[in-house]
Amino acid sequence: MCSFISDTLRGMDLPFPALWLRDNCPCPACRDPRSGQKLHTVADLDGEVSVAASAESGGTVSVHFTDGHVARFERDWLDRHRDVDAAGDGRTETGKDLWDRVAPPEAGWAGFRADPRPALDALWRTGFVLLRDTPVAPGTVLAVARTFGHVRTTNYGELFDVRIERQPGNLAFTSRAIAPHTDNPYRDPVPTLQLLHCLRAAADGGGESGLVDGFRAAVLLRDRHPEHFAVLSRMPATFAWGRLSAQRPMIGVDEIGRIREIRYNNRSLQPLAGPREGLEAFYAAYRAFDALLNRAGAMVTFGLGPGDCVIFDNTRVLHARTAFDPRAAADRHLQGCYADLDAVQWLVARTQVAAG
Amino acid sequence: MCSFISDTLRGMDLPFPALWLRDNCPCPACRDPRSGQKLHTVADLDGEVSVAASAESGGTVSVHFTDGHVARFERDWLDRHRDVDAAGDGRTETGKDLWDRVAPPEAGWAGFRADPRPALDALWRTGFVLLRDTPVAPGTVLAVARTFGHVRTTNYGELFDVRIERQPGNLAFTSRAIAPHTDNPYRDPVPTLQLLHCLRAAADGGGESGLVDGFRAAVLLRDRHPEHFAVLSRMPATFAWGRLSAQRPMIGVDEIGRIREIRYNNRSLQPLAGPREGLEAFYAAYRAFDALLNRAGAMVTFGLGPGDCVIFDNTRVLHARTAFDPRAAADRHLQGCYADLDAVQWLVARTQVAAG
Repeated sequence: MCSFISDTLRGMDLPFPALWLRDNCPCPACRDPRSGQKLHTVADLDGEVSVAASAESGGTVSVHFTDGHVARFERDWLDRHRDVDAAGDGRTETGKDLWDRVAPPEAGWAGFRADPRPALDALWRTGFVLLRDTPVAPGTVLAVARTFGHVRTTNYGELFDVRIERQPGNLAFTSRAIAPHTDNPYRDPVPTLQLLHCLRAAADGGGESGLVDGFRAAVLLRDRHPEHFAVLSRMPATFAWGRLSAQRPMIGVDEIGRIREIRYNNRSLQPLAGPREGLEAFYAAYRAFDALLNRAGAMVTFGLGPGDCVIFDNTRVLHARTAFDPRAAADRHLQGCYADLDAVQWLVARTQVAAG
Repeated sequence: MCSFISDTLRGMDLPFPALWLRDNCPCPACRDPRSGQKLHTVADLDGEVSVAASAESGGTVSVHFTDGHVARFERDWLDRHRDVDAAGDGRTETGKDLWDRVAPPEAGWAGFRADPRPALDALWRTGFVLLRDTPVAPGTVLAVARTFGHVRTTNYGELFDVRIERQPGNLAFTSRAIAPHTDNPYRDPVPTLQLLHCLRAAADGGGESGLVDGFRAAVLLRDRHPEHFAVLSRMPATFAWGRLSAQRPMIGVDEIGRIREIRYNNRSLQPLAGPREGLEAFYAAYRAFDALLNRAGAMVTFGLGPGDCVIFDNTRVLHARTAFDPRAAADRHLQGCYADLDAVQWLVARTQVAAG
């Protein structure tokens, strides 16, 4: 059994197991000062270690362990680790600003180049940002992605052109309306960011873009129909395209129930298999979630003019577009690419573990 | 309430809800023949649709719906969707060949170039493959990745050099032994594939590489210590490096309990917060899993000589290396890069939904 510092320092109320304290010793022999990386494994430590003595002085708690090691912790640091941080890593519902038809966060290209952090902070918390006045030149979407992150190349290439094709391999390349969806749900991991950059708009103004907060719709589903939320978060759905497939739930929650990832795409959803009762429950839940995603007041819509670039979180925000007249829109041309959220986190995170 | 085909065709025993059948109609008006994509959303369908009439002839089941639509299904196709496919999308334990100290699957560079599928099939099912006789030239690791997939660029760049550095920002760039771990657990999504290519080996033969099947160790933990498995699969752990962090469990399971993703890295694991009882349970489980990962007979070890390139599944297989003498190994030089499993699935998958 472990001993606890609270056993020897009852007045301090530091409810940490001795092994937790030993493992988290911040001294340079335990944690590399340059990288912040831990230098021992859990097997290097005595599993039966206990606290031999301890004392607090000037905001520092010194702990002498039975293995002979001495650790010195800042009292503030220990206090901060008493309770679970509700925001987690910032990727679940608890770290986001959820919305209904929010005013799009915007940034001009010049300002973004000077300091991308306000726009990226909006992208991180709101789930999307609109960049205005970027260059109207092919390939700009890649340049935008590379100002802050790294392009995720897929079988579609580094970038993809969204325009009407004669023999489209994907419905994105037609003039059809496209219902709110996330991209590439048949891929695991999905690209966590998508960028769409406008080179030429449709002459009739059709082909407007729309975004919906999937986390908000999932929260509403959980509030109003917890039985449907349970089905969509616990039942793996298969999405497939070509030879790619992924079997993942429409509403991904983490181990303690926080909404973390939405996968939603009617076009690539495959037939569910299983007992009839499960299929019935799935369709009831699917219809209820679809109704919430398409509820009045959920979607923010905007036109993308030449030089506009929208960046959105593909694990949370669904995108859609209205239909357009293929004659008026023969020249409509967007370019898109994928990237990942880690680069955004790197720029917007408020804390870091070491000089890194 | 939905009606069921089995209501009208009791002898056929097709236990599908009418809405399931309607949604999965394969006709060209419902599913684009070129892309295989569904052309309607679930909201386009009558939620109260039922089967008006149906008949089977020559292996085809015709279903007339109350909305006027007629669907024709192959009987075989319907039968295949009666039971859940245990292999899922091939990414969980059920789609893998689990191992203890397996003989490394190998392929020569020339054979791999001619047909990479046997080697990629081994990578997909066994979790790693060794390529021999690749060019001994800087940047080869990127060329290898690009023969079948796409490089995942990170803050480390397109590729990273693994050699002794004077001021290392990461312990990989020292001569220390490195315990079995997965890379970048502080990133979500993690890179799902890693490649390591040897340009120069250590003169004393140190710095051997080792791989461990994390899925196998997790299965053993579930068999022997279900209480520890429950803790590690249900408790989010925080991994961090620099300003990157991810809060994810060490053993990721899918919604129906299948092992899907291992994150394990003592160096970047952060102090867990929460009630004392939870911390105690975590350390007991963490120690038990660590013991299974490091159990005798688990690890396959091999030396990487110049031109050797190992590719492994970073969501499943942990990698390690033995220490080496920094004087004998001043010239040891590997190059690594990350990529993703979707490209492997594209090449090894046996089925596809459409021409794509």
